Amino acid sequence: MKSYRKELWFSVPQRRQMVNITGQVRECLRESGIREGLCLVNAMHITASVFINDDEGGLHQDMEVWLEKLAPEKPHSQYRHNNGEDNADAHLKRTIMGREVVVAITDGDFDFGPWEQIFYGEFDGRRKKRVLVKIIGE
Amino acid sequence: MKSYRKELWFSVPQRRQMVNITGQVRECLRESGIREGLCLVNAMHITASVFINDDEGGLHQDMEVWLEKLAPEKPHSQYRHNNGEDNADAHLKRTIMGREVVVAITDGDFDFGPWEQIFYGEFDGRRKKRVLVKIIGE
Amino acid sequence: MKSYRKELWFSVPQRRQMVNITGQVRECLRESGIREGLCLVNAMHITASVFINDDEGGLHQDMEVWLEKLAPEKPHSQYRHNNGEDNADAHLKRTIMGREVVVAITDGDFDFGPWEQIFYGEFDGRRKKRVLVKIIGE
Repeated sequence: MKSYRKELWFSVPQRRQMVNITGQVRECLRESGIREGLCLVNAMHITASVFINDDEGGLHQDMEVWLEKLAPEKPHSQYRHNNGEDNADAHLKRTIMGREVVVAITDGDFDFGPWEQIFYGEFDGRRKKRVLVKIIGE
Repeated sequence: MKSYRKELWFSVPQRRQMVNITGQVRECLRESGIREGLCLVNAMHITASVFINDDEGGLHQDMEVWLEKLAPEKPHSQYRHNNGEDNADAHLKRTIMGREVVVAITDGDFDFGPWEQIFYGEFDGRRKKRVLVKIIGE
Repeated sequence: MKSYRKELWFSVPQRRQMVNITGQVRECLRESGIREGLCLVNAMHITASVFINDDEGGLHQDMEVWLEKLAPEKPHSQYRHNNGEDNADAHLKRTIMGREVVVAITDGDFDFGPWEQIFYGEFDGRRKKRVLVKIIGE
């Protein structure tokens, strides 16, 4: 069994943004030399997400509106966590979007459906944060 | 390390439906011959889900009502993604239900609790779509 | 490839509670002797969750309020599943929080970001329930 590990760093200039990281994660897979196995990609921070969906700008705007409806940022005072912080909503938004994805590796590439793309979902940006890529297989 | 891969195809006649796929995924496990490891089951489409819950009809009706409340289908015009499409809600519903499950394999079978069953959650049906089963172990 | 399996039992005195299980899962990892691989931690019951977030009491209170808003327990009669049962909301709350986490193992420890902690989320307690820890690697 081979294993591979890499951290990807992001510094998103807005509070919230979705970043397509499929290319960077595929680069990790190539570097690993692993051809059959599983690839875990997870946010290392608890106010960010890694998820798989469509790379379509309208959908990302819909998601922003939808997440704000389900877990609104303001007023900051509605959350007990916001005692010296203002990011309680980011913890909740990331809960809906998910911490991680596990992707199958077949024949040296991601075993994706036609529209699957990996995204980093930032919900409390404007600082450096990390995603972990861990691959096991052979 | 051994690895196994299979696509399961579904053509759900309604727009939305939950299909118990535990038997079909267990058939894959038998075919793989793997007795210790991990089994990834994921929707290959971004408007469908694979999740684990109870095989109870009342609960599935509750989920339908609940998902419609959290991410309503209509009016289609409320979503920017629905520009020539009408399935933005399906992307959001699948986000809540999840893309994938990872199941432990112990002693040649799924290491399940008493009521765990694997479901395919279709949110934009009436066409052929796929689920990926990837198993690694030995 | 090595594999390891253990069940952790919990009996939460309230209907709902979040329990930090990071220490117990780390104990499993030590027992396994595995230094590179993946660790799956999942609720074996469909009215409970395993998730990763911050060990901050204010946030946990926010989550309780938030989950009650998105999937209220009462009135019990609003759910079709509650026919001789009263836990439909627990199935929905666990859907939002997630069944499982997959954690990377690097150099004999969990490959965590600075604040990541593993929680058992109980949504229908007052009885004995289980979490599965399955580790594969070498």
